[in-house]
Amino acid sequence: MNQTSQDVMKWISEEYYDLNGSHFDTIDALPSALEFSQLIRTARPVLIKDCPAPKAFARWTDEYLAKSCGDSPISVAVTPNGRADAITQNEDGRLYFAEPLVEQMTMKGFLAKLASVDSEVLYLQSQDGNLFSSNRNIPSEFHKILSDVPEHLPFCTEALDNMPDAVNLWIGSSKSVTSIHSDPYENIYSVIRGSKTFTVFPPTEGWCMEERVYPHATYLRVGDDSELILVPSEEPPVRWSSITDPTDPKAISSSAHPITITVQAGQSLYLPAGWWHYVRQTEMTIAVNYWYDMESRGSSWVWLNLLRGGASNVSLLPGNEGDDIMDDEDDSEEDEP
Amino acid sequence: MNQTSQDVMKWISEEYYDLNGSHFDTIDALPSALEFSQLIRTARPVLIKDCPAPKAFARWTDEYLAKSCGDSPISVAVTPNGRADAITQNEDGRLYFAEPLVEQMTMKGFLAKLASVDSEVLYLQSQDGNLFSSNRNIPSEFHKILSDVPEHLPFCTEALDNMPDAVNLWIGSSKSVTSIHSDPYENIYSVIRGSKTFTVFPPTEGWCMEERVYPHATYLRVGDDSELILVPSEEPPVRWSSITDPTDPKAISSSAHPITITVQAGQSLYLPAGWWHYVRQTEMTIAVNYWYDMESRGSSWVWLNLLRGGASNVSLLPGNEGDDIMDDEDDSEEDEP
Repeated sequence: MNQTSQDVMKWISEEYYDLNGSHFDTIDALPSALEFSQLIRTARPVLIKDCPAPKAFARWTDEYLAKSCGDSPISVAVTPNGRADAITQNEDGRLYFAEPLVEQMTMKGFLAKLASVDSEVLYLQSQDGNLFSSNRNIPSEFHKILSDVPEHLPFCTEALDNMPDAVNLWIGSSKSVTSIHSDPYENIYSVIRGSKTFTVFPPTEGWCMEERVYPHATYLRVGDDSELILVPSEEPPVRWSSITDPTDPKAISSSAHPITITVQAGQSLYLPAGWWHYVRQTEMTIAVNYWYDMESRGSSWVWLNLLRGGASNVSLLPGNEGDDIMDDEDDSEEDEP
Repeated sequence: MNQTSQDVMKWISEEYYDLNGSHFDTIDALPSALEFSQLIRTARPVLIKDCPAPKAFARWTDEYLAKSCGDSPISVAVTPNGRADAITQNEDGRLYFAEPLVEQMTMKGFLAKLASVDSEVLYLQSQDGNLFSSNRNIPSEFHKILSDVPEHLPFCTEALDNMPDAVNLWIGSSKSVTSIHSDPYENIYSVIRGSKTFTVFPPTEGWCMEERVYPHATYLRVGDDSELILVPSEEPPVRWSSITDPTDPKAISSSAHPITITVQAGQSLYLPAGWWHYVRQTEMTIAVNYWYDMESRGSSWVWLNLLRGGASNVSLLPGNEGDDIMDDEDDSEEDEP
């Protein structure tokens, strides 16, 4: 992004902050479809305090989950440090976007390892619509507990006039951290056990996220019991924030205004499309989230695209998106997060 | 606006057009509050074909209006050319933003003059909430027919969670034209008699509207029967589009994509906040419109402000908003509409 484009981004984010501040709404019960439609229009995070959780969730003890899922293999992300899908320095000294090793195990095995003092960190976070998905035909790995989970949220479905694109189950420990990123989805994130603390930033502060393009790498295990190693892959490079810990004021631009929202069990967070979020969680946390496609008509898509720097390569000044990618890759060693 | 800012605006408008085209929705009946909330989110114009008009409107003949309003004075805009609130060249050769003379007359007198071949053009267009207004305490000039008009539209009021800011009555002839402009209001425009043809452009094409800052002038009549003269005023200069007729393809940038929507009697147009519109009408047209405040939270306001060039003075390149105003005033003679 050239200086002028960045000045436009800075102007936008200041105007937005002047109007909206760091406030987030808290509501006491699920909104109606009309109320939720208004919340989508405003596109600010909303903590929903008393969500009438499906009764089935009350029985989601470790024992119940282990017994219900039985011998079905489930996909679990494994990393040495709890930082799956995050920028990580490899032994070669370079920074990579590191994807976890995905291992298959039973729910019982997963829950036992999660509670152990194993040096590796496990996180059930397959996030591909692992419960329900609008665009895949393979059955869910969790088909034996699917009847416990609502396939959609009527107030969202009616407001957005569409079923969710993906419904995901997340089970992890405090060792796992979700690195800061944004999704082009309207997100309803419901905590079932434990709590999650979201550090969020509006789309207008995307220019403070120091996105760069990093080479891709994946954790692999060479032998059955060997340690994980990070192996550069042939996959295309990944554009990602360079900020490791946005809760550290020293790590982030003073132009960015973090909002901290803790979602307790029984509560849900509405996180609007395009909002940046970094997530930590308590020792044993279970959550289900609903991703709904954002509105594609109108200006929302253009707006988010602009805020991701989409217009920065139209400048008459030197530099364009293509050049930036190369520069960022070359620079990556200097950009220790 | 400097070149780089304009390139960003051009990028935005091309992306927006690629996604949305020149389509406008037509719906057969009034939307529910939820449906209208979704329409506001998309922010595209919608023609509502079969609006259940208040039965009272069926009796709004000239005779009924004249009799009902009786001797109450009403404010009518008078111009020599039907171009109230428009850029007009004065005898001194300069271009001005010309406001009409506002004359008081009875409804009967107004309707008689409207139908005559008088060389002056009358337009009942006081547009200050002349029927209902949220922010004035003086009674409406039309208090005797107010009971015929719904004070608000429940589907809008519920969707926007607010009463309308202003409800206006418009009565005019084909000699009157509304120059192209945009309003920061959600607008529901209902035609009662005749028809109105809107030529509209999305907010993203504001950069094609050639806005400049013009000195202000008002039509005055020196003696009772004398001709109107345009008199420069002490009022602050007005920022306005330099395009006189946006229906003329030669008059407008090829980057702008006009959408033409004709609203017949019994139909309504939803024109979202910030949309540019130029309006012509048939011989004798009566309409009522509802202006609702646009959502001030979230990003809508920042977005419209950006598209009006709000960020152009943050550039590092020479020129800022203040300079532009002076340049535009000096340039006005060259900009014959």
